[in-house]
Parts: sequence; C-alpha cells; structure tokens
Amino acid sequence: MTKEKIKPTLKHKLHEIIFEADTKAGKLFDVVLIASIVISVIVVMLDSVRAISDKYGEFFFYIEWFFTIIFTIEYLLRTYTVGKPFKYVFSFFGVVDFLAIIPTYVAFFFPATRYFAVVRILRVLRIFRVLKFVQYLGEAKILMSALKSSRRKITIFIFTVFTLVVILGSLMYIIEGEENGFTSIPRSIYWAIVTLTTVGYGDISPQTNLGQTLAAFIMILGYGIIAVPTGIVTSELSNKEYKVVSTQVCKECSMEGHDVDAKYCKYCGAKI
Amino acid sequence: MTKEKIKPTLKHKLHEIIFEADTKAGKLFDVVLIASIVISVIVVMLDSVRAISDKYGEFFFYIEWFFTIIFTIEYLLRTYTVGKPFKYVFSFFGVVDFLAIIPTYVAFFFPATRYFAVVRILRVLRIFRVLKFVQYLGEAKILMSALKSSRRKITIFIFTVFTLVVILGSLMYIIEGEENGFTSIPRSIYWAIVTLTTVGYGDISPQTNLGQTLAAFIMILGYGIIAVPTGIVTSELSNKEYKVVSTQVCKECSMEGHDVDAKYCKYCGAKI
Amino acid sequence: MTKEKIKPTLKHKLHEIIFEADTKAGKLFDVVLIASIVISVIVVMLDSVRAISDKYGEFFFYIEWFFTIIFTIEYLLRTYTVGKPFKYVFSFFGVVDFLAIIPTYVAFFFPATRYFAVVRILRVLRIFRVLKFVQYLGEAKILMSALKSSRRKITIFIFTVFTLVVILGSLMYIIEGEENGFTSIPRSIYWAIVTLTTVGYGDISPQTNLGQTLAAFIMILGYGIIAVPTGIVTSELSNKEYKVVSTQVCKECSMEGHDVDAKYCKYCGAKI
Amino acid sequence: MTKEKIKPTLKHKLHEIIFEADTKAGKLFDVVLIASIVISVIVVMLDSVRAISDKYGEFFFYIEWFFTIIFTIEYLLRTYTVGKPFKYVFSFFGVVDFLAIIPTYVAFFFPATRYFAVVRILRVLRIFRVLKFVQYLGEAKILMSALKSSRRKITIFIFTVFTLVVILGSLMYIIEGEENGFTSIPRSIYWAIVTLTTVGYGDISPQTNLGQTLAAFIMILGYGIIAVPTGIVTSELSNKEYKVVSTQVCKECSMEGHDVDAKYCKYCGAKI
Repeated sequence: MTKEKIKPTLKHKLHEIIFEADTKAGKLFDVVLIASIVISVIVVMLDSVRAISDKYGEFFFYIEWFFTIIFTIEYLLRTYTVGKPFKYVFSFFGVVDFLAIIPTYVAFFFPATRYFAVVRILRVLRIFRVLKFVQYLGEAKILMSALKSSRRKITIFIFTVFTLVVILGSLMYIIEGEENGFTSIPRSIYWAIVTLTTVGYGDISPQTNLGQTLAAFIMILGYGIIAVPTGIVTSELSNKEYKVVSTQVCKECSMEGHDVDAKYCKYCGAKI
Repeated sequence: MTKEKIKPTLKHKLHEIIFEADTKAGKLFDVVLIASIVISVIVVMLDSVRAISDKYGEFFFYIEWFFTIIFTIEYLLRTYTVGKPFKYVFSFFGVVDFLAIIPTYVAFFFPATRYFAVVRILRVLRIFRVLKFVQYLGEAKILMSALKSSRRKITIFIFTVFTLVVILGSLMYIIEGEENGFTSIPRSIYWAIVTLTTVGYGDISPQTNLGQTLAAFIMILGYGIIAVPTGIVTSELSNKEYKVVSTQVCKECSMEGHDVDAKYCKYCGAKI
Repeated sequence: MTKEKIKPTLKHKLHEIIFEADTKAGKLFDVVLIASIVISVIVVMLDSVRAISDKYGEFFFYIEWFFTIIFTIEYLLRTYTVGKPFKYVFSFFGVVDFLAIIPTYVAFFFPATRYFAVVRILRVLRIFRVLKFVQYLGEAKILMSALKSSRRKITIFIFTVFTLVVILGSLMYIIEGEENGFTSIPRSIYWAIVTLTTVGYGDISPQTNLGQTLAAFIMILGYGIIAVPTGIVTSELSNKEYKVVSTQVCKECSMEGHDVDAKYCKYCGAKI
Repeated sequence: MTKEKIKPTLKHKLHEIIFEADTKAGKLFDVVLIASIVISVIVVMLDSVRAISDKYGEFFFYIEWFFTIIFTIEYLLRTYTVGKPFKYVFSFFGVVDFLAIIPTYVAFFFPATRYFAVVRILRVLRIFRVLKFVQYLGEAKILMSALKSSRRKITIFIFTVFTLVVILGSLMYIIEGEENGFTSIPRSIYWAIVTLTTVGYGDISPQTNLGQTLAAFIMILGYGIIAVPTGIVTSELSNKEYKVVSTQVCKECSMEGHDVDAKYCKYCGAKI
C-alpha cells in the first residue's frame, strides 16, 4: 500500500501480514493459509468416502472445527484490518471466506447433510489468493484479457454449437427412436453433446445404420470444429503477446514496435 | 435503411420494427421474439419427454397454438412489409420462418407424430436473427471468412481423414472379424471414425492383440492430426486479424487491403 | 504437357484425356472415373454386410466384374499412353491402379475371401487423382510441406508420448494388477494410449483409488499435451502462409514483405 | 569435447565411442545400444503376458541376463571413461542406467515379482540418448524452451482446471448421489476429470436430468477450454520461431536477441 509507513499501528501491521506478501511474516501467513486450505479441503473430500468416514469420522470432526475456528479468526481479522469492511464482505473473496466457515456452525444446530460438504469445498477457491503470493497475476491477466477480447467470437461459437446439437439431437431422436435409447429430444441432445465434444460415454449409442452414419458425421464435425475456439484463443493470445512487447514510440523517428527491454530505437539508434 | 425517412407509412414503420433493431420498438420486438422462440423450442423439447407430456400434454397443446398464431402473424407481416416478398419467402430465413409454423397446421388435419417435433425444432435457427440485434455480425463474418478461405485445406483434410478411416476400418474388419463385433466393413469404418475422432464409445472395441495394436496406432494418429484443422483455422484467423488492422483506402484507385505500415498504395503507387 | 501440340497422335490425345484435366474430354473422363471409383467402393462395402450380401450378392458380382473390366481397360490405356510405362507401373498410383483390378481376377480362380475386400477397397486411394482435377494441389502442398518441416518436432513428440505410455502403462499394471483387467504390460500400455489420447473406450478402467488418481493425472496430461502437436503445426503453417505471401523484393529500396498481388512497393512507391 | 585431441588414450577413445556419435565406432555403438534397449524392453513387456511367459519364460530369462550383463559392462565403462564419475552416477541418465541393471541382480536373491518389471521398463528412457545421435537436440530444445516460458500460464490453467473439477465434481455428488454411482466426492471429482478432458469412459455416467444437464455443461466447457493450453503453446512456439530468425549479436555490447529488421542495437544504440 503506502510506500512510507511511518509508525505503523497494529491494524496496519496485521493488514500487511494478512493481505500482502512482501514481508516475511506476510509470506509465512500465506504459506500457512494455503496449507490449511489444502488440508481442510482434503478432509472434506475424504469425509465423503463412507469407508474412511466410518473409521476416522470423529477425528475429521475435530479437524473440521479446528480449521473453522482458524478461518473464523482470519475472517474477523480481515474484516477488522481492511479499509472498507463492507466492500470486502460483499466482494467475491469476502463471500467465499464467509462460505468457508458458515456450514460448520449451521451443522452444529441442524443435522449435517452431504449438502454442507459442497459449500465447504468452495474453500478451494481461496487458494486463488496464492496467485498474488507467487506473482502469477500478470500471466493470469494476459489469459483473462485474451479470453475477454475473444468473448464475442466464443459466444457465437457456443451459440452455433448449441444450435447444432439441438437440431442434430432432434434428428437422431427421429432416426433412432425410443427403442434404441433415444427416449426424448432432451436426452438425444444430451447424446449429441456427448458425441460432438468427443467425450463418448457409450451409455447411449446409435444402433441403426442411418443413426451410425449421422453419428459418424457428428463426430467428424466435432473433431473439426474444435479448431475454431482454439484458433480464436491462439490468434488472440499471439496478439496480446505482441501488444505486451510493443508500446514505446521513438522520440526521434517516431517508429513503434520496440521490445519491452529496448533502450535505444532499433531504427534510428536514438535513446528511448 | 434509408437515413432520411420523410413521412414513414405504416408499412415502413412496421418494417423498421420487424427487420431492424435501431429503434426502441424494434429492440423490444426482437427481445419478445427471442423469448417466444426460446419458450416454444423448450416446449417442443419437453413435449417429447413421455413423463412430462403425459402430465402437461394439453397445456403444451395450447402453448403450441399460441406461438404458432403469433409466428404466423409475424410471418405475414414480414411478407407484407418487405420490399421483395418472393425473395424473402425463398430466402433461408423465409423458409425457416415458414417451417416454424406449418407443422402445427398440418398436425391439425393429420395425427401428430414425432416427426413434426423436429421440423418445429428448426425454430431454434431463428435465434440467429439475434446476431443482428446484439451486433455480433462483424465477429461472425470474420469467423465465416476464415473458414471460407481455409475451405480448400479443410476439404483436403476431411478427404484424407475419410480415406484413412475407410482403409483402416477395412483392415480392422480383416483383423478382428465378425466374432469380435466388426461384422461388416461399414460397421468397422464407423468404429474407425469413433476411434480416430477420440470419441470412443466402447460399444465396439478390439479384442485381439493385433487389433489393439492397430487401434493404438489409430488413436495416436487421431490425437496428432487434430493439429491440422486447428493449424489451418488458427493461421487463417491470425491473417484475418491482420487484415482487420488494415482499413485504409487508396485515394487514387480506391483499392483496400493495405498493410498497416504501407506508405504507398500497392496497386497504383500513389501516396496514402 | 507440351504447350504447342502440333498434329497430336491418338496416343497423345488419349494421354491428354486420361492424365490431364484441362480439356473437356479430360474433365469428363475424370468425372466418370471418380463416379466409378465411388460406386465400386460402396459396392465392396455393402457386399461385406451379410444381410445385404445375401440379397444382392449376385447383382454385386456383376457390378464388380463390370468395374474391374473398365478399370483394366483404363490401366492398359494408362500404361500404353504414358511416356515411361515402367515408371508408371511401379509408381504409387500405378501400384494402386493394379491392386484395384487384380483381386477380382484372383477370386475367379480361388474362392473369394474377405481378404480380397480390403485390397479392393484400396481403390479409394485413386480418388486422390481428383486433387489434380479440382486444382487443390497447391493447398495440399502447403499442408504437406508444413508437416514435412515440422516432422522432427513431431517425431520427438510421438517419441515422448510413446515413452510416457510405456512407463505409465507399466505403473498402472503394478497398481491395478490382473484382477482389475490390467492383465499384462502391453494391455496396460494399450489402456494408457486409450486414456492419454482421450479416446476412453471404458473396456478397461481403473478400480482402485490409486489407479483412478493416476488415471486422472494421465487424462489431464493427455488433455494438455495435445497442445504441442497443434502448436507445432500451427506455427509452421503460419510461417508457410507468410512465405507464400512474401517473396518479391523492391528494386528501388530493396524492401521485402510485399503481398503477392502488390504491383508497387509499399515503402517507396516504385513499380515492382 | 576438446577439438584438438593429441595422442588419445584408451580412456579417451572409449569415451569418444560411448558418449559421442561423430565417429564411425561411436555411431555403431549407438545403433547397437538402441537395438539392445528396444529388444530388452519388448522382452520385459512380453514376459508380463501370462500365455507368452508360460511358453518362453526360460528363454526370456536368458535374454534378460544377456542384456543385463551387456548393460552392466556399458555402465562400468561409462563410469570409468567419464571425467567426473560421481556427477555421472547421480545424473538423470546415470540413475536410469543403474535402474536398468539392478532389478535382475536383486531378483537373483529374492523371488521375482511383477514390481521388478516396471523398474526394468525404465530402460525405455535410455532411448532418449538417441536424440543426440540423430541430432534432434535443437528441435527438442525449442519445444522445451517453449514449454518452459509458458510454464506459468500452464500452471494457472492446470490450477483453474483443478479448481473447476473439485467444485463441479462435488456439485455432481450432491445432484446424482450414491445411488447413481457418485459414491463420494473424490470419485465424483474423478468423473469430472474423465468428462472435462473428453475421455469419457462411461464407467460412471449421470442418470438424472439435472445431472445430465450439468454433465453437458462440463463437456462443452472441456471442449472449449482445451483452446487455452493450445493457444499458450502455439503463441509461444511462434515467438520462438521468430527468435530463431534473429541471430545477430551486437559488436559493441555483445547483446543478442535483436529483431531481423533492426539496424541499431536496442541496448547500446550501436550500429549493427
């Protein structure tokens, strides 16, 4: 935050530790936090496996409370130290932090069901704070902005794919019919998606000759049109890469396109 | 259409509303139309699910008639307001608009079959009018023109893939034979397509050692050659992106398509 | 061939018709040939379907002989009209043309088996003559040369994939063992290929927790490394595209990088 | 190594043969080595197939010892001729070379289990020495460096995919439940990975309408986001290709990495 911190209060110090990662204490805090998140998520996962849950259920119960209390303290400290508490509480990470602790308290009053498990598993989202820590943010931003500037093309693509599976699925519903597992149009559309995306479960598969021919056509189509989103993202990423490289303009010859690490104009040799 | 509409007649006004999206009424019309299309398509889908159809069949029947009458009025208005009605009627969207309403009338005289469902589901194509509405047309054109200019390469690719699956499928027919599910050459070719496109239903799978070895080869081939259509579309899209950058028109010969760094027209040599 | 054909002999005329596609007769010949190939290949395919073969077997027998005699005449004419008959006979297409006719004659003396079917199906390769006809050759060459210049990278990639599936398959053989279908190392490697290439038949699938974890890892690996061949081919194709566009050098300012349709240098305006 | 070898000792000569491939003896050694590796790996594979092992078990036993002794001699010679034996022994290939021979000796004292098979199969890694032989190293380096410089973006991608499958898998666990095969969160995550990567075994597949809808969403997601790693690697590879073009070194500051069209050093401004 502010570069010249004169007489930092406890609140300031805590803020440094909890939200930043450029001090030693801040880095340690982040490492401990990530470890806590990973362990608590693994516990939630294992707790859903009956065989393991039957054996270690009580042990998991105590671990769950341990992490919930830790995360609660962390949540309260975040709310306390942050400049605008309300903005934090209703921000994406604020909500995720809240959802990470609330299910355990609710389960204390109501019998625990498997529905709580999934809410708790959202803790995994908190790991994205790690991005800040290892300074991967820049790369993430390039990826995000590439996806963002190609969102229109991707929308059109998904739109076209959706129209295709609706029509092809319905066609398959007529061709194969209920006797071959294509019991309704939605189910046939589900099959068309399974086939077009080359997933191919095999839970429903065409039996008639005409059905297999159409299926073969859908497969080749799906195999081919995967090129479109790839082409979109690639050409967008290549452009980004370019843009990152070139922004400076030479003051002498006003040529553009210099590398980021360039100190002299590559066309006229003038200092940039 | 014409920028200076002096004394617009009712016909003109209706045309503005139905075909354009730059007036408030036109936008509202589009939104209502899209909603109608989406709802009517969902109704057609749900109607094909026996459990739902048994329960809400009659309700769906009335909704179906409601939208059919709406779409009929819209169709007549389009035919009335458009400059060249015949051109519209036999255009792509004209046919789609017609197919969207006719099955319900036909089903009135003949017992309804599941075949009508699919004709009615073509209504989903009408949603593509939305592209105009949200101005995604430009992006769609880039994608289309990228696919268009790479159509020869894609044809060669599909051609090669087709030849490959015919030969590999036939080879598999010999190796595995009828006893392992490869009952005929067309069926073996179907299997080869399922495998090469990495769909992999598993309804037919090789049992012999030689068959599994050939299958492994086909898989790696399919895994590798997917790079070809992707490479084609990507390099084409990157080129398009380039062309998008160059928008200058020569003042002398009014030719387009110059590079960004061009100082002189490449067709007539005039300074740009 | 030779641009100024004075007094073409019958041999020359036939050569023009059979091998070239720039005369009317030559084009007609090509169209008839392609139709013959397609029909004869479809007949071979349908003949392998027992139900159809039982019904139309005799009919297919006569069609087969009809096309064999046609292809035989064509083969003899090719050998007669071509400049160097031996070179043609032992060329790729010469062998394919020969294999297209010989099985029917052999089957006359020996009882026909399904093995002949596959040899006859190689006729499908003859369709590639069509490339010359529709002048797709240039595009095919670009694709071929892109694959050629990236063959080293692709070799390394296939090499790495092969090593990966050998090690991962063997590891899976230990983890899952014979009781879960991983009966031997070759079979486990087959499974690893099915999984890495994202085909996923499901005929063998891991049952143990550790096995499913390793399988998940292999899947994500396979999902990710498909980027490598795609990247190789794409960057190669983009380079080709580039090269096709730019070869001219301006005589005045000796700048390169002009478009193929450029008549004037885009940097100095001099005529190219 | 050193360009001017005056009076090469036996040790030097052996080193040349074993480690290099620019002499005739060195090339022969490499060819023999590769053949030995390939044969011994195939023997290990076949030995795991019960039917073959029962028949040729004893034969395989002798082959195994034959190659083990050969590889042992090779290992000792490598250790003897290399400049820094310890560095070699603990290098990647040193460990692989050791693991290639040790299981046979261990199996001599302890009953052989299938676990030894996999250790021996690591011999396949030794084939990578071939890269040096056929001089594919340069291409391998380009690929490696492309992957290396995109490792951050790939990490973020894998990170995101991992988070997605954890959340989507858990959601599916709630929707489908134990009665449809989604018996625990880890198993549901396994299913989510199988689906997202478009592998699609079909051993677990959603049965409820909501489950199939979510599955369809996951498939389309997986089908679309495969564009991201592809885009990353492609744009990175294209950049590398670019860098390959620029090989000039500044005479003043000896910095590399100038563009092809650079006339002045971008670091010190000196004319190139």
